[in-house]
Amino acid sequence: MAGWAKHLAGIKGVVLDISGVLYDSGGEGGGVPIPGSIEAVKKIKTSGLKLRFCTNETQATREKFVEKLQRLGFDIAVNEVTAPAPAACLILKERNLRPHLLVHDDVIPEFADVDKANPNCVVVGDAADNFSYKNLNETFRVLIGLENPVLISLGKGRYYKETDGLKLDVGVYMKALEYACDIQAEVVGKPAKMFFQSALREMGVEPHQAIMIGDDIVNDVGGAQQCGMKALQVRTGKYRPCDEQHPKVKADGYVDNLAEAVDVILKQLCE
Amino acid sequence: MAGWAKHLAGIKGVVLDISGVLYDSGGEGGGVPIPGSIEAVKKIKTSGLKLRFCTNETQATREKFVEKLQRLGFDIAVNEVTAPAPAACLILKERNLRPHLLVHDDVIPEFADVDKANPNCVVVGDAADNFSYKNLNETFRVLIGLENPVLISLGKGRYYKETDGLKLDVGVYMKALEYACDIQAEVVGKPAKMFFQSALREMGVEPHQAIMIGDDIVNDVGGAQQCGMKALQVRTGKYRPCDEQHPKVKADGYVDNLAEAVDVILKQLCE
Repeated sequence: MAGWAKHLAGIKGVVLDISGVLYDSGGEGGGVPIPGSIEAVKKIKTSGLKLRFCTNETQATREKFVEKLQRLGFDIAVNEVTAPAPAACLILKERNLRPHLLVHDDVIPEFADVDKANPNCVVVGDAADNFSYKNLNETFRVLIGLENPVLISLGKGRYYKETDGLKLDVGVYMKALEYACDIQAEVVGKPAKMFFQSALREMGVEPHQAIMIGDDIVNDVGGAQQCGMKALQVRTGKYRPCDEQHPKVKADGYVDNLAEAVDVILKQLCE
Repeated sequence: MAGWAKHLAGIKGVVLDISGVLYDSGGEGGGVPIPGSIEAVKKIKTSGLKLRFCTNETQATREKFVEKLQRLGFDIAVNEVTAPAPAACLILKERNLRPHLLVHDDVIPEFADVDKANPNCVVVGDAADNFSYKNLNETFRVLIGLENPVLISLGKGRYYKETDGLKLDVGVYMKALEYACDIQAEVVGKPAKMFFQSALREMGVEPHQAIMIGDDIVNDVGGAQQCGMKALQVRTGKYRPCDEQHPKVKADGYVDNLAEAVDVILKQLCE
């Protein structure tokens, strides 16, 4: 067993990233499971460990997203998923913010209950093909026209991997709008501390009792560690070998895939 | 006369920004002259002052761009214009760089003599509607696939003003690609020192003998000052009142428009 595994003693909860860990998104069926991941999720569920899925996915409502994962064979339910859009809705309501949305069409229903008339802020998500020049320009004009421009970004990822290659993620367009208006965005979703904390609260475990498994060295691994959790990086999804020499973030361990991660964690539980 | 005008003694050359100073771009005829600007250009030409136009315009070849300005009534010739695309071509040839172009269709002819097979760098210009998600993603994939990613940006402006409102400029997409690939772009065009220096060389005047007139507080005014030139900001084009309280850049003077700037400069010459 890997030397780092002994640091996993006392783990009571597992937080799983979804895209690039459970499956690679894209293509006709909406994606393909990463070999061994369906069984690995089952193993966690039968182990007695708490489990939470924590995603920055904002291309669909949680309902549609979970339906897709179930169709691919995963044992997952809507109330097991922490996602940025519902978290953003809470913030919007608390602060009386009325968003102009630059998001994927399929996530718009998550904002059904939010007042969007006469916007006083912008919410940007992973809008994919909706990131046209026309739409980004329209969003920019709303933002620069506000006396106090508020930009809420559903994540700050650089890119993710779909079955047909790498795709630009929301963080890239967040940076574009930040520069255009000379402002700083507020990030909802990983790596924001509040986002991991709400996942931990849902599981009822303390940070030091939880481990994150993700493919993003900064947003999954770095974010979870900043929150006091352990974190493993899988060599699937957007993983690149140079991640293991990242100048700022060092995972507690690197594993080939989720199946290996779960095997190591479960072996440790039995020691 | 404005108190700052006395600092203009000894001026021998004038460098003019075009968009937002001579005319507002956009709309059916390609734009409308800013009142008084056509006459102001004529006045400079008959005064004996050297004159150079210095633009970050990359939505057309210099030829097409100058034709448009002539049609609008301006006395301007192609060899009086310093523009980023020809400057970039020199750099590409010097360094054996083969660009993947993310630019406006109408500026592509400027790169006709440049080898674009098997790209080893990216050149981004003000691509406007070509800034689709698909095109930006394709450009990102070229860049992140390079062992030593080189990104050349034709300017770093945030936005400019067309007749129908503000439009996002190339700098915004430069920042997006910088963030996506965790790299720094090389900027050709204002505010790069080399760019102002080549305009000065064309006029044969020293920096302290030259004055820049522009609507962009950072790229025109700040850039020219960094190069040792004087600089005025006009209250036309993308000018916003808060520019006069800019935290880092203070123009040598602020004038309502080019006509006023030229009147002040010419009066000073006669003193």
